[in-house]
Amino acid sequence: MLDRLSLNQYTTREWSLRDAVDGCARAGITSIGLWRDKIDDAGLDTAVALVRDAGLHVSSVCRGGFFATADPEERAGRRADNRRAVDETAALRADTLVLVCGGQAGLPLTTARDMVSDGIADLAGYAATRGVRLAIEPMHPMYCADRSVIVTLGQALDVAEAFPPEQVGVMIDTFHIWWDPQVKAQIARASGRIAGFQVCDWLVPLPDVLLGRGLMGDGPIDFPDLLRAVDAAGYDGPIEVEIFNRALWDTPGDEVVAAVKERFATHVLGRSRPSV
Amino acid sequence: MLDRLSLNQYTTREWSLRDAVDGCARAGITSIGLWRDKIDDAGLDTAVALVRDAGLHVSSVCRGGFFATADPEERAGRRADNRRAVDETAALRADTLVLVCGGQAGLPLTTARDMVSDGIADLAGYAATRGVRLAIEPMHPMYCADRSVIVTLGQALDVAEAFPPEQVGVMIDTFHIWWDPQVKAQIARASGRIAGFQVCDWLVPLPDVLLGRGLMGDGPIDFPDLLRAVDAAGYDGPIEVEIFNRALWDTPGDEVVAAVKERFATHVLGRSRPSV
Repeated sequence: MLDRLSLNQYTTREWSLRDAVDGCARAGITSIGLWRDKIDDAGLDTAVALVRDAGLHVSSVCRGGFFATADPEERAGRRADNRRAVDETAALRADTLVLVCGGQAGLPLTTARDMVSDGIADLAGYAATRGVRLAIEPMHPMYCADRSVIVTLGQALDVAEAFPPEQVGVMIDTFHIWWDPQVKAQIARASGRIAGFQVCDWLVPLPDVLLGRGLMGDGPIDFPDLLRAVDAAGYDGPIEVEIFNRALWDTPGDEVVAAVKERFATHVLGRSRPSV
Repeated sequence: MLDRLSLNQYTTREWSLRDAVDGCARAGITSIGLWRDKIDDAGLDTAVALVRDAGLHVSSVCRGGFFATADPEERAGRRADNRRAVDETAALRADTLVLVCGGQAGLPLTTARDMVSDGIADLAGYAATRGVRLAIEPMHPMYCADRSVIVTLGQALDVAEAFPPEQVGVMIDTFHIWWDPQVKAQIARASGRIAGFQVCDWLVPLPDVLLGRGLMGDGPIDFPDLLRAVDAAGYDGPIEVEIFNRALWDTPGDEVVAAVKERFATHVLGRSRPSV
Protein backbone atom coordinates (compact mmCIF):
# COMPACT_ATOMS: atom_id res chain seq x y z
CA MET A 1 0.00 0.00 0.00
CA LEU A 2 2.74 2.44 0.94
CA ASP A 3 5.19 1.62 -1.81
CA ARG A 4 4.26 4.79 -3.76
CA LEU A 5 4.62 7.09 -0.75
CA SER A 6 7.51 9.55 -0.90
CA LEU A 7 8.30 11.91 1.97
CA ASN A 8 9.12 15.39 0.75
CA GLN A 9 11.62 16.50 3.32
CA TYR A 10 10.00 19.93 3.78
CA THR A 11 7.12 18.12 5.51
CA THR A 12 9.63 17.47 8.30
CA ARG A 13 11.47 20.72 7.79
CA GLU A 14 13.30 20.77 11.10
CA TRP A 15 15.06 17.55 10.14
CA SER A 16 18.43 17.64 8.40
CA LEU A 17 18.82 15.55 5.28
CA ARG A 18 20.45 12.84 7.41
CA ASP A 19 17.57 12.95 9.91
CA ALA A 20 15.06 12.64 7.07
CA VAL A 21 16.88 9.69 5.50
CA ASP A 22 17.00 7.93 8.86
CA GLY A 23 13.35 8.78 9.51
CA CYS A 24 12.31 7.22 6.20
CA ALA A 25 14.27 4.08 7.03
CA ARG A 26 12.56 3.80 10.43
CA ALA A 27 9.15 4.26 8.82
CA GLY A 28 9.75 1.93 5.87
CA ILE A 29 9.39 4.75 3.34
CA THR A 30 11.44 4.08 0.22
CA SER A 31 11.33 7.43 -1.63
CA ILE A 32 12.19 10.96 -0.63
CA GLY A 33 11.86 14.43 -2.16
CA LEU A 34 14.84 16.67 -1.42
CA TRP A 35 15.34 20.42 -1.17
CA ARG A 36 18.49 22.15 -2.23
CA ASP A 37 19.06 24.08 0.99
CA LYS A 38 19.12 20.76 2.84
CA ILE A 39 21.42 19.25 0.20
CA ASP A 40 23.72 22.26 0.63
CA ASP A 41 23.71 21.88 4.40
CA ALA A 42 24.74 18.23 4.10
CA GLY A 43 27.09 18.73 1.17
CA LEU A 44 26.22 17.15 -2.18
CA ASP A 45 28.61 14.19 -1.90
CA THR A 46 27.34 13.35 1.58
CA ALA A 47 23.75 13.70 0.39
CA VAL A 48 24.40 11.32 -2.49
CA ALA A 49 26.05 8.81 -0.16
CA LEU A 50 23.25 9.06 2.41
CA VAL A 51 20.43 8.27 0.01
CA ARG A 52 22.48 5.60 -1.80
CA ASP A 53 23.46 3.81 1.40
CA ALA A 54 19.88 3.92 2.66
CA GLY A 55 18.61 2.52 -0.65
CA LEU A 56 16.33 5.54 -0.98
CA HIS A 57 14.88 6.63 -4.30
CA VAL A 58 14.89 10.42 -4.82
CA SER A 59 11.56 11.37 -6.36
CA SER A 60 12.39 15.04 -6.88
CA VAL A 61 14.81 17.84 -6.17
CA CYS A 62 13.32 21.23 -5.36
CA ARG A 63 14.02 23.67 -6.91
CA GLY A 64 15.19 25.45 -10.00
CA GLY A 65 13.40 28.33 -11.64
CA PHE A 66 12.80 31.98 -10.74
CA PHE A 67 13.53 32.90 -14.33
CA ALA A 68 11.94 36.35 -14.47
CA THR A 69 13.97 39.35 -13.42
CA ALA A 70 14.58 42.74 -15.00
CA ASP A 71 18.27 42.62 -14.05
CA PRO A 72 20.44 40.88 -16.69
CA GLU A 73 23.21 40.19 -14.19
CA GLU A 74 20.78 38.57 -11.80
CA ARG A 75 19.38 36.56 -14.69
CA ALA A 76 22.83 35.26 -15.51
CA GLY A 77 23.37 34.31 -11.88
CA ARG A 78 20.13 32.40 -11.79
CA ARG A 79 20.98 30.65 -15.04
CA ALA A 80 24.21 29.40 -13.46
CA ASP A 81 22.39 28.35 -10.30
CA ASN A 82 19.80 26.46 -12.34
CA ARG A 83 22.58 24.53 -14.04
CA ARG A 84 23.99 23.61 -10.63
CA ALA A 85 20.50 22.42 -9.67
CA VAL A 86 20.51 20.17 -12.73
CA ASP A 87 23.92 18.81 -11.75
CA GLU A 88 22.71 18.04 -8.24
CA THR A 89 19.61 16.33 -9.60
CA ALA A 90 21.80 14.20 -11.86
CA ALA A 91 24.17 13.30 -9.01
CA LEU A 92 21.23 12.22 -6.83
CA ARG A 93 19.68 10.23 -9.72
CA ALA A 94 16.41 11.97 -8.91
CA ASP A 95 13.34 11.54 -11.10
CA THR A 96 13.07 15.24 -11.80
CA LEU A 97 14.11 18.79 -10.99
CA VAL A 98 11.10 20.84 -9.91
CA LEU A 99 10.87 24.31 -11.44
CA VAL A 100 9.20 27.02 -9.40
CA CYS A 101 9.21 29.42 -12.28
CA GLY A 102 9.19 32.70 -10.38
CA GLY A 103 6.74 35.56 -9.96
CA GLN A 104 6.00 38.67 -11.92
CA ALA A 105 8.96 40.45 -10.30
CA GLY A 106 7.63 43.92 -11.06
CA LEU A 107 7.52 43.22 -14.79
CA PRO A 108 4.53 43.25 -17.11
CA LEU A 109 2.95 39.84 -16.70
CA THR A 110 3.45 38.82 -20.32
CA THR A 111 7.12 39.85 -20.14
CA ALA A 112 7.64 37.73 -17.04
CA ARG A 113 5.93 34.79 -18.71
CA ASP A 114 8.10 35.16 -21.81
CA MET A 115 11.21 35.15 -19.61
CA VAL A 116 10.03 31.91 -18.03
CA SER A 117 9.63 30.26 -21.43
CA ASP A 118 13.06 31.51 -22.51
CA GLY A 119 14.65 30.35 -19.27
CA ILE A 120 13.18 26.87 -19.59
CA ALA A 121 14.29 26.62 -23.21
CA ASP A 122 17.83 27.51 -22.15
CA LEU A 123 17.85 25.08 -19.24
CA ALA A 124 16.17 22.17 -21.03
CA GLY A 125 19.06 21.74 -23.43
CA TYR A 126 21.57 21.59 -20.60
CA ALA A 127 19.36 19.26 -18.55
CA ALA A 128 19.09 16.89 -21.52
CA THR A 129 22.88 16.57 -21.67
CA ARG A 130 22.83 15.55 -17.99
CA GLY A 131 19.90 13.14 -18.35
CA VAL A 132 17.71 15.27 -16.08
CA ARG A 133 14.00 15.77 -16.62
CA LEU A 134 12.60 19.16 -15.71
CA ALA A 135 9.17 19.48 -14.08
CA ILE A 136 7.29 22.74 -14.51
CA GLU A 137 5.16 23.14 -11.41
CA PRO A 138 2.04 25.22 -11.90
CA MET A 139 1.44 27.03 -8.64
CA HIS A 140 -1.74 28.40 -7.14
CA PRO A 141 -2.75 31.73 -8.72
CA MET A 142 -2.32 33.43 -5.35
CA TYR A 143 1.44 33.11 -5.94
CA CYS A 144 1.38 34.78 -9.36
CA ALA A 145 3.02 38.02 -8.24
CA ASP A 146 5.82 36.59 -6.15
CA ARG A 147 6.44 32.90 -6.83
CA SER A 148 5.12 31.62 -10.13
CA VAL A 149 3.55 33.24 -13.15
CA ILE A 150 2.72 29.69 -14.26
CA VAL A 151 -0.61 29.25 -12.52
CA THR A 152 -2.54 26.45 -14.21
CA LEU A 153 -1.72 22.98 -15.42
CA GLY A 154 -2.93 23.95 -18.88
CA GLN A 155 -0.48 26.84 -19.00
CA ALA A 156 2.37 24.62 -17.75
CA LEU A 157 1.60 22.15 -20.53
CA ASP A 158 1.51 24.97 -23.11
CA VAL A 159 5.12 25.70 -22.13
CA ALA A 160 6.23 22.08 -21.70
CA GLU A 161 4.87 20.92 -25.05
CA ALA A 162 7.62 22.82 -26.86
CA PHE A 163 9.95 20.04 -25.66
CA PRO A 164 10.04 16.25 -25.74
CA PRO A 165 8.08 14.79 -22.79
CA GLU A 166 11.12 13.04 -21.32
CA GLN A 167 12.91 16.40 -21.24
CA VAL A 168 10.25 18.74 -19.81
CA GLY A 169 7.33 17.44 -17.80
CA VAL A 170 5.02 18.84 -15.13
CA MET A 171 4.77 18.47 -11.38
CA ILE A 172 1.16 18.15 -10.29
CA ASP A 173 0.58 19.29 -6.71
CA THR A 174 -2.98 18.96 -5.46
CA PHE A 175 -2.70 22.13 -3.34
CA HIS A 176 -2.03 24.20 -6.42
CA ILE A 177 -4.51 22.75 -8.93
CA TRP A 178 -7.53 21.28 -7.11
CA TRP A 179 -9.76 24.34 -7.72
CA ASP A 180 -9.35 24.37 -11.52
CA PRO A 181 -12.55 23.54 -13.45
CA GLN A 182 -10.34 22.21 -16.26
CA VAL A 183 -8.08 20.08 -14.09
CA LYS A 184 -9.32 16.66 -15.20
CA ALA A 185 -9.01 17.48 -18.88
CA GLN A 186 -5.55 18.93 -18.33
CA ILE A 187 -4.35 15.91 -16.32
CA ALA A 188 -5.47 13.70 -19.20
CA ARG A 189 -3.62 16.01 -21.60
CA ALA A 190 -0.51 15.69 -19.40
CA SER A 191 -0.25 11.97 -20.16
CA GLY A 192 3.40 11.09 -20.71
CA ARG A 193 4.54 14.36 -19.13
CA ILE A 194 3.68 13.83 -15.48
CA ALA A 195 7.08 14.00 -13.81
CA GLY A 196 5.69 13.85 -10.30
CA PHE A 197 2.58 14.01 -8.15
CA GLN A 198 2.47 15.79 -4.81
CA VAL A 199 -0.32 15.78 -2.24
CA CYS A 200 -1.19 18.25 0.49
CA ASP A 201 -4.54 19.62 1.65
CA TRP A 202 -5.90 23.20 1.70
CA LEU A 203 -6.86 24.57 5.10
CA VAL A 204 -10.21 26.41 5.47
CA PRO A 205 -10.21 29.26 6.15
CA LEU A 206 -6.72 29.64 4.78
CA PRO A 207 -4.65 30.82 7.75
CA ASP A 208 -1.59 31.86 5.74
CA VAL A 209 -0.77 32.17 2.05
CA LEU A 210 2.43 30.11 2.26
CA LEU A 211 1.84 27.91 5.30
CA GLY A 212 -1.90 27.26 5.03
CA ARG A 213 -1.34 23.68 4.01
CA GLY A 214 -2.50 20.65 5.88
CA LEU A 215 -2.38 16.90 6.16
CA MET A 216 -4.60 15.11 3.69
CA GLY A 217 -8.08 14.98 5.22
CA ASP A 218 -7.77 18.33 6.97
CA GLY A 219 -9.25 20.19 4.00
CA PRO A 220 -11.61 19.91 1.03
CA ILE A 221 -9.38 18.22 -1.56
CA ASP A 222 -10.60 14.93 -3.00
CA PHE A 223 -7.29 13.06 -3.36
CA PRO A 224 -8.60 9.70 -4.65
CA ASP A 225 -10.45 11.54 -7.39
CA LEU A 226 -7.29 13.36 -8.54
CA LEU A 227 -5.14 10.24 -8.10
CA ARG A 228 -7.50 8.30 -10.36
CA ALA A 229 -7.06 10.97 -13.03
CA VAL A 230 -3.27 10.91 -12.67
CA ASP A 231 -3.27 7.09 -12.75
CA ALA A 232 -5.51 7.10 -15.83
CA ALA A 233 -2.99 9.40 -17.50
CA GLY A 234 -0.41 6.66 -17.04
CA TYR A 235 1.58 7.99 -14.11
CA ASP A 236 2.73 5.18 -11.81
CA GLY A 237 5.59 6.89 -9.98
CA PRO A 238 6.01 8.10 -6.41
CA ILE A 239 3.39 10.21 -4.66
CA GLU A 240 5.13 12.84 -2.59
CA VAL A 241 3.63 14.29 0.56
CA GLU A 242 4.79 17.90 0.78
CA ILE A 243 3.23 20.07 3.49
CA PHE A 244 4.24 23.54 4.63
CA ASN A 245 2.66 23.93 8.05
CA ARG A 246 4.19 25.58 11.11
CA ALA A 247 2.45 23.27 13.61
CA LEU A 248 3.70 20.19 11.75
CA TRP A 249 7.20 21.64 11.60
CA ASP A 250 7.06 22.08 15.38
CA THR A 251 6.04 18.42 15.88
CA PRO A 252 8.68 15.67 16.31
CA GLY A 253 9.50 14.25 12.87
CA ASP A 254 8.63 10.64 13.66
CA GLU A 255 5.14 11.70 14.75
CA VAL A 256 4.69 13.67 11.54
CA VAL A 257 5.81 10.71 9.44
CA ALA A 258 3.40 8.40 11.28
CA ALA A 259 0.55 10.83 10.59
CA VAL A 260 1.61 11.15 6.94
CA LYS A 261 1.53 7.36 6.51
CA GLU A 262 -1.88 7.06 8.14
CA ARG A 263 -3.43 9.91 6.14
CA PHE A 264 -1.83 8.66 2.94
CA ALA A 265 -3.51 5.28 3.41
CA THR A 266 -6.90 6.65 4.41
CA HIS A 267 -7.22 9.84 2.36
CA VAL A 268 -5.05 9.37 -0.73
CA LEU A 269 -5.29 5.64 -1.43
CA GLY A 270 -8.65 5.43 0.39
CA ARG A 271 -12.12 6.19 -0.79
CA SER A 272 -13.33 9.51 -2.17
CA ARG A 273 -15.55 11.54 0.09
CA PRO A 274 -19.14 10.41 -0.45
CA SER A 275 -21.25 12.27 -2.95
CA VAL A 276 -24.36 13.96 -1.57
CA MET B 1 -12.33 61.85 -16.74
CA LEU B 2 -14.13 60.71 -13.61
CA ASP B 3 -17.57 60.16 -15.09
CA ARG B 4 -17.11 56.39 -15.13
CA LEU B 5 -15.92 56.17 -11.55
CA SER B 6 -18.25 54.45 -9.11
CA LEU B 7 -17.51 54.16 -5.41
CA ASN B 8 -18.28 50.75 -4.04
CA GLN B 9 -19.34 51.56 -0.54
CA TYR B 10 -17.26 48.78 1.02
CA THR B 11 -14.19 50.85 0.12
CA THR B 12 -15.41 53.23 2.82
CA ARG B 13 -16.85 50.52 4.98
CA GLU B 14 -17.15 52.53 8.17
CA TRP B 15 -19.55 54.90 6.43
CA SER B 16 -23.28 54.29 6.58
CA LEU B 17 -25.18 54.37 3.32
CA ARG B 18 -26.14 57.98 4.04
CA ASP B 19 -22.49 58.87 4.74
CA ALA B 20 -21.43 57.26 1.48
CA VAL B 21 -24.10 59.05 -0.54
CA ASP B 22 -23.07 62.37 0.99
CA GLY B 23 -19.39 61.54 0.42
CA CYS B 24 -20.02 60.86 -3.27
CA ALA B 25 -21.86 64.18 -3.58
CA ARG B 26 -18.95 66.07 -1.96
CA ALA B 27 -16.49 64.36 -4.28
CA GLY B 28 -18.52 64.72 -7.47
CA ILE B 29 -18.87 60.97 -7.90
CA THR B 30 -22.08 60.06 -9.70
CA SER B 31 -22.30 56.27 -9.25
CA ILE B 32 -22.20 54.03 -6.22
CA GLY B 33 -22.08 50.29 -5.56
CA LEU B 34 -24.17 49.24 -2.56
CA TRP B 35 -24.04 46.36 -0.10
CA ARG B 36 -27.10 44.74 1.34
CA ASP B 37 -26.03 44.99 4.99
CA LYS B 38 -25.76 48.76 4.53
CA ILE B 39 -29.11 48.86 2.72
CA ASP B 40 -30.63 46.90 5.63
CA ASP B 41 -29.14 49.30 8.17
CA ALA B 42 -30.67 52.27 6.36
CA GLY B 43 -33.92 50.54 5.45
CA LEU B 44 -34.70 49.90 1.79
CA ASP B 45 -37.14 52.80 1.35
CA THR B 46 -34.69 55.24 2.88
CA ALA B 47 -31.87 53.84 0.74
CA VAL B 48 -33.97 54.29 -2.39
CA ALA B 49 -34.82 57.87 -1.40
CA LEU B 50 -31.21 58.72 -0.53
CA VAL B 51 -29.74 57.67 -3.87
CA ARG B 52 -32.67 59.14 -5.82
CA ASP B 53 -32.50 62.50 -4.07
CA ALA B 54 -28.74 62.64 -4.57
CA GLY B 55 -29.12 61.80 -8.26
CA LEU B 56 -26.80 58.84 -7.77
CA HIS B 57 -26.72 55.94 -10.18
CA VAL B 58 -26.43 52.52 -8.48
CA SER B 59 -23.92 50.46 -10.43
CA SER B 60 -24.41 47.25 -8.44
CA VAL B 61 -25.93 45.65 -5.40
CA CYS B 62 -23.82 43.09 -3.55
CA ARG B 63 -24.75 40.33 -3.05
CA GLY B 64 -26.87 37.33 -3.83
CA GLY B 65 -25.52 33.81 -4.18
CA PHE B 66 -24.16 31.20 -1.77
CA PHE B 67 -26.15 28.58 -3.59
CA ALA B 68 -24.35 25.44 -2.44
CA THR B 69 -25.36 23.81 0.81
CA ALA B 70 -26.11 20.23 1.76
CA ASP B 71 -29.08 21.32 3.89
CA PRO B 72 -32.35 21.56 1.90
CA GLU B 73 -33.90 23.89 4.49
CA GLU B 74 -30.95 26.23 4.35
CA ARG B 75 -31.11 26.10 0.56
CA ALA B 76 -34.75 27.17 0.65
CA GLY B 77 -33.87 30.03 3.01
CA ARG B 78 -31.15 31.24 0.69
CA ARG B 79 -33.48 31.00 -2.28
CA ALA B 80 -35.91 33.31 -0.50
CA ASP B 81 -33.11 35.70 0.47
CA ASN B 82 -31.84 35.79 -3.11
CA ARG B 83 -35.30 36.82 -4.27
CA ARG B 84 -35.30 39.62 -1.72
CA ALA B 85 -31.92 40.69 -3.11
CA VAL B 86 -33.48 40.86 -6.57
CA ASP B 87 -36.33 42.96 -5.20
CA GLU B 88 -33.90 45.38 -3.57
CA THR B 89 -31.87 45.64 -6.76
CA ALA B 90 -35.05 46.44 -8.70
CA ALA B 91 -36.14 49.05 -6.15
CA LEU B 92 -32.75 50.75 -6.36
CA ARG B 93 -32.77 50.60 -10.18
CA ALA B 94 -29.26 49.19 -9.99
CA ASP B 95 -27.43 47.94 -13.06
CA THR B 96 -27.00 44.47 -11.65
CA LEU B 97 -27.15 42.13 -8.67
CA VAL B 98 -23.72 40.63 -7.99
CA LEU B 99 -23.70 36.90 -7.29
CA VAL B 100 -21.01 35.56 -5.00
CA CYS B 101 -21.88 32.00 -5.78
CA GLY B 102 -20.66 30.34 -2.59
CA GLY B 103 -17.91 27.90 -1.71
CA GLN B 104 -17.63 24.15 -1.72
CA ALA B 105 -19.41 23.95 1.64
CA GLY B 106 -18.07 20.49 2.46
CA LEU B 107 -19.60 19.03 -0.69
CA PRO B 108 -17.83 17.32 -3.59
CA LEU B 109 -16.67 20.17 -5.81
CA THR B 110 -18.73 19.06 -8.81
CA THR B 111 -21.84 18.81 -6.61
CA ALA B 112 -21.33 22.34 -5.30
CA ARG B 113 -20.84 23.61 -8.84
CA ASP B 114 -24.02 21.88 -10.01
CA MET B 115 -25.93 23.52 -7.13
CA VAL B 116 -24.65 26.90 -8.25
CA SER B 117 -25.89 26.34 -11.79
CA ASP B 118 -29.26 25.15 -10.48
CA GLY B 119 -29.53 28.11 -8.12
CA ILE B 120 -28.77 30.61 -10.87
CA ALA B 121 -31.30 28.96 -13.19
CA ASP B 122 -33.92 29.28 -10.48
CA LEU B 123 -33.07 32.89 -9.69
CA ALA B 124 -32.68 34.08 -13.28
CA GLY B 125 -36.32 33.48 -14.08
CA TYR B 126 -37.45 35.49 -11.07
CA ALA B 127 -34.93 38.27 -11.78
CA ALA B 128 -36.20 38.54 -15.37
CA THR B 129 -39.72 39.21 -14.09
CA ARG B 130 -38.32 42.08 -12.00
CA GLY B 131 -36.12 43.48 -14.78
CA VAL B 132 -32.93 42.69 -12.84
CA ARG B 133 -29.75 41.52 -14.49
CA LEU B 134 -27.66 39.02 -12.52
CA ALA B 135 -23.87 39.21 -12.57
CA ILE B 136 -21.92 36.04 -11.85
CA GLU B 137 -18.67 37.14 -10.24
CA PRO B 138 -15.77 34.75 -10.74
CA MET B 139 -13.67 34.98 -7.60
CA HIS B 140 -10.01 34.27 -7.06
CA PRO B 141 -9.31 30.52 -6.79
CA MET B 142 -8.09 31.01 -3.22
CA TYR B 143 -11.78 31.42 -2.28
CA CYS B 144 -12.91 28.17 -3.89
CA ALA B 145 -13.51 26.32 -0.62
CA ASP B 146 -15.37 29.00 1.26
CA ARG B 147 -16.69 31.79 -1.01
CA SER B 148 -17.02 30.85 -4.67
CA VAL B 149 -16.61 27.64 -6.60
CA ILE B 150 -16.79 29.87 -9.71
CA VAL B 151 -13.10 30.74 -10.04
CA THR B 152 -12.42 31.87 -13.60
CA LEU B 153 -14.11 34.17 -16.05
CA GLY B 154 -14.31 31.31 -18.54
CA GLN B 155 -16.19 29.18 -16.04
CA ALA B 156 -18.54 32.07 -15.19
CA LEU B 157 -19.30 32.47 -18.88
CA ASP B 158 -19.92 28.73 -19.25
CA VAL B 159 -22.68 29.13 -16.65
CA ALA B 160 -23.97 32.50 -17.88
CA GLU B 161 -24.27 31.43 -21.51
CA ALA B 162 -27.24 29.23 -20.66
CA PHE B 163 -29.21 32.49 -20.36
CA PRO B 164 -29.83 35.59 -22.49
CA PRO B 165 -27.05 38.17 -21.93
CA GLU B 166 -29.42 40.80 -20.57
CA GLN B 167 -30.57 38.30 -17.94
CA VAL B 168 -27.28 36.82 -16.70
CA GLY B 169 -23.96 38.60 -17.16
CA VAL B 170 -20.62 38.61 -15.38
CA MET B 171 -18.91 40.95 -12.94
CA ILE B 172 -15.24 41.36 -13.81
CA ASP B 173 -13.11 42.32 -10.81
CA THR B 174 -9.40 42.80 -11.54
CA PHE B 175 -8.40 41.41 -8.13
CA HIS B 176 -9.98 38.08 -8.97
CA ILE B 177 -8.96 37.56 -12.58
CA TRP B 178 -5.68 39.39 -13.32
CA TRP B 179 -3.50 36.25 -12.98
CA ASP B 180 -5.44 34.18 -15.55
CA PRO B 181 -3.45 33.38 -18.73
CA GLN B 182 -6.77 33.23 -20.60
CA VAL B 183 -8.20 36.48 -19.27
CA LYS B 184 -7.98 38.52 -22.48
CA ALA B 185 -9.65 35.86 -24.58
CA GLN B 186 -12.36 35.43 -21.97
CA ILE B 187 -13.01 39.17 -21.68
CA ALA B 188 -13.48 39.25 -25.46
CA ARG B 189 -15.82 36.28 -25.18
CA ALA B 190 -17.78 38.16 -22.49
CA SER B 191 -18.79 40.84 -24.98
CA GLY B 192 -22.42 41.74 -24.36
CA ARG B 193 -22.40 40.05 -20.96
CA ILE B 194 -20.20 42.39 -18.93
CA ALA B 195 -22.57 43.61 -16.24
CA GLY B 196 -19.90 45.48 -14.31
CA PHE B 197 -16.18 46.13 -13.95
CA GLN B 198 -14.49 46.49 -10.58
CA VAL B 199 -10.93 47.56 -9.86
CA CYS B 200 -8.70 46.89 -6.87
CA ASP B 201 -5.03 45.96 -6.62
CA TRP B 202 -3.31 42.89 -5.17
CA LEU B 203 -0.88 43.49 -2.33
CA VAL B 204 2.51 41.74 -2.43
CA PRO B 205 3.18 39.77 -0.35
CA LEU B 206 -0.50 39.14 0.26
CA PRO B 207 -1.00 40.07 3.93
CA ASP B 208 -4.44 38.50 4.29
CA VAL B 209 -6.65 36.33 2.12
CA LEU B 210 -9.71 38.56 2.43
CA LEU B 211 -8.24 41.97 3.19
CA GLY B 212 -5.04 41.87 1.13
CA ARG B 213 -6.46 44.34 -1.37
CA GLY B 214 -5.02 47.71 -2.15
CA LEU B 215 -5.50 50.97 -3.97
CA MET B 216 -4.74 50.81 -7.66
CA GLY B 217 -0.99 51.29 -8.03
CA ASP B 218 -0.10 49.53 -4.78
CA GLY B 219 0.27 46.17 -6.51
CA PRO B 220 1.14 44.46 -9.79
CA ILE B 221 -2.15 44.73 -11.71
CA ASP B 222 -2.06 46.49 -15.07
CA PHE B 223 -5.43 48.27 -15.02
CA PRO B 224 -5.24 50.15 -18.34
CA ASP B 225 -4.45 46.87 -20.07
CA LEU B 226 -7.52 45.17 -18.60
CA LEU B 227 -9.68 48.26 -19.14
CA ARG B 228 -8.73 48.32 -22.82
CA ALA B 229 -9.86 44.70 -23.12
CA VAL B 230 -13.14 45.44 -21.34
CA ASP B 231 -13.68 48.54 -23.50
CA ALA B 232 -12.92 46.55 -26.64
CA ALA B 233 -15.57 44.05 -25.57
CA GLY B 234 -18.07 46.90 -25.68
CA TYR B 235 -18.49 47.69 -22.00
CA ASP B 236 -18.98 51.41 -21.40
CA GLY B 237 -20.60 51.39 -17.96
CA PRO B 238 -19.35 52.41 -14.53
CA ILE B 239 -15.99 51.29 -13.18
CA GLU B 240 -16.37 50.50 -9.50
CA VAL B 241 -13.56 50.83 -7.02
CA GLU B 242 -14.04 48.12 -4.40
CA ILE B 243 -11.25 47.62 -1.87
CA PHE B 244 -11.24 45.52 1.30
CA ASN B 245 -8.38 46.86 3.35
CA ARG B 246 -8.29 47.40 7.11
CA ALA B 247 -6.01 50.45 6.94
CA LEU B 248 -8.29 52.13 4.40
CA TRP B 249 -11.33 51.32 6.53
CA ASP B 250 -9.60 53.01 9.47
CA THR B 251 -8.95 56.17 7.40
CA PRO B 252 -11.52 59.01 7.27
CA GLY B 253 -13.83 58.40 4.33
CA ASP B 254 -13.20 61.70 2.55
CA GLU B 255 -9.46 60.96 2.51
CA VAL B 256 -10.12 57.53 1.08
CA VAL B 257 -12.36 58.97 -1.63
CA ALA B 258 -9.73 61.55 -2.55
CA ALA B 259 -7.12 58.80 -2.89
CA VAL B 260 -9.53 56.68 -4.93
CA LYS B 261 -10.11 59.55 -7.37
CA GLU B 262 -6.41 60.24 -7.75
CA ARG B 263 -5.46 56.59 -8.27
CA PHE B 264 -8.37 56.07 -10.63
CA ALA B 265 -7.10 58.89 -12.83
CA THR B 266 -3.44 57.88 -12.73
CA HIS B 267 -3.60 54.08 -12.60
CA VAL B 268 -6.88 53.07 -14.21
CA LEU B 269 -7.43 55.70 -16.87
CA GLY B 270 -3.67 56.42 -17.04
CA ARG B 271 -0.93 54.68 -18.92
CA SER B 272 0.04 51.02 -18.55
CA ARG B 273 3.25 50.33 -16.71
CA PRO B 274 6.10 50.49 -19.21
CA SER B 275 7.22 47.30 -20.88
CA VAL B 276 10.80 46.25 -20.27
